[in-house]
Amino acid sequence: MDKKSAKESTANDLRKGERTREEILDQALRTAARGGLGTLSIGNLAKEVNMSKSGLFVHFGSKENLEQAVVDRASDLFFNYVVLPTEESGLEGIEQLWTLCDLWLGLVEDRVFAGDYFFTGAFCQCARQDGSIPQRIAETVWRWHKALKRAVEKGQRHGEILDTIDSKRIALELNGLLLGAQWSHLMEGEDRTQARSAILAKLASIATDEIPASAFASLKDWRKYLESRRP
Amino acid sequence: MDKKSAKESTANDLRKGERTREEILDQALRTAARGGLGTLSIGNLAKEVNMSKSGLFVHFGSKENLEQAVVDRASDLFFNYVVLPTEESGLEGIEQLWTLCDLWLGLVEDRVFAGDYFFTGAFCQCARQDGSIPQRIAETVWRWHKALKRAVEKGQRHGEILDTIDSKRIALELNGLLLGAQWSHLMEGEDRTQARSAILAKLASIATDEIPASAFASLKDWRKYLESRRP
Repeated sequence: MDKKSAKESTANDLRKGERTREEILDQALRTAARGGLGTLSIGNLAKEVNMSKSGLFVHFGSKENLEQAVVDRASDLFFNYVVLPTEESGLEGIEQLWTLCDLWLGLVEDRVFAGDYFFTGAFCQCARQDGSIPQRIAETVWRWHKALKRAVEKGQRHGEILDTIDSKRIALELNGLLLGAQWSHLMEGEDRTQARSAILAKLASIATDEIPASAFASLKDWRKYLESRRP
Repeated sequence: MDKKSAKESTANDLRKGERTREEILDQALRTAARGGLGTLSIGNLAKEVNMSKSGLFVHFGSKENLEQAVVDRASDLFFNYVVLPTEESGLEGIEQLWTLCDLWLGLVEDRVFAGDYFFTGAFCQCARQDGSIPQRIAETVWRWHKALKRAVEKGQRHGEILDTIDSKRIALELNGLLLGAQWSHLMEGEDRTQARSAILAKLASIATDEIPASAFASLKDWRKYLESRRP
């Protein structure tokens, strides 16, 4: 083999290694999202992806590393689905806050995670534990909280959310509405309207006169209003 | 040994067996409440209670039986702490609904479970799974939801909650507020006021004129009002 093809071959091996790692992580995340991180086992995972346990160890080294990689992947998935598109969308004022909540609900409804463990279950389970995994889960929860808070503040700077309200408190309240909606969704199944109406009512209560009250009359009116303000 | 003392000795053995079983379950519940049911292991549990694995098997027979017993114990603990005292208290009208929510928050704040897995984490983790354990967890969640709904309806019959509201919807909304409060509590630590103020605001929005509006002005006013209507 000449130097060039040796180099290409190494690059190919690396790419293949990365792909395999991704496939293992996808499967691990499906399992963890369904039953919790506690249900991950190197042995079962190896069977599910048709590898030997030692082959799997090459990629992750330890159960703890695997768990960390799963949490990181779940975190990336969450932020790429909910937060990044919203913050990079150029949406302004109160609409950014709305979109964060709307996408968060979409994540639950569309079952982007195979189960409901991430991050609601995971946080409840890990919140008071020590260690690097609980810490990473808590970090994700805090990052999410901060994204909500930032969106409230952006809406305030934009003059569409009342200056007098406490952004942290509103972030916690909106998060509570979302959790309640996830719970209802788990209990009752499909209902894409009720949770969004509750979010809309909350937004109506913190909006300034910049936004016509009629915009908050119904979800339909709200969507029409958002449509109307786009360039 | 004469007949009488043989009988006494059997009774003592039974009581001792029950006590041991309770002790094992207490320890198992502490573990599961912290890390989830997935972290329960017969081996670790045996070490924690200073028994042999085979000795532990005498009491539960299988890991699944142990998990079921833990869920049942958690469920009993929850209902004995929140629902039964409320329903047996003879509290009337809207006060019963308030007390359910107040005790639910107390359960989280006082860490009646050693961790936050039961039942919020457990339900998120198990909601879409099949099997007898997820089913028992879901049953507990439904029983709780029904207790809330029943309290709303009782308040309606008592003329203190508006007839026009949908009891199921209010039960879900109150539950959402409670979950949001639990989450805030996990993120932010102690705050016994904010969640109760949010519950009180929700009650104010569904109360009839039977209750003076001034009662809802603050938590202090609310407690004073409740005090004043007791015989």
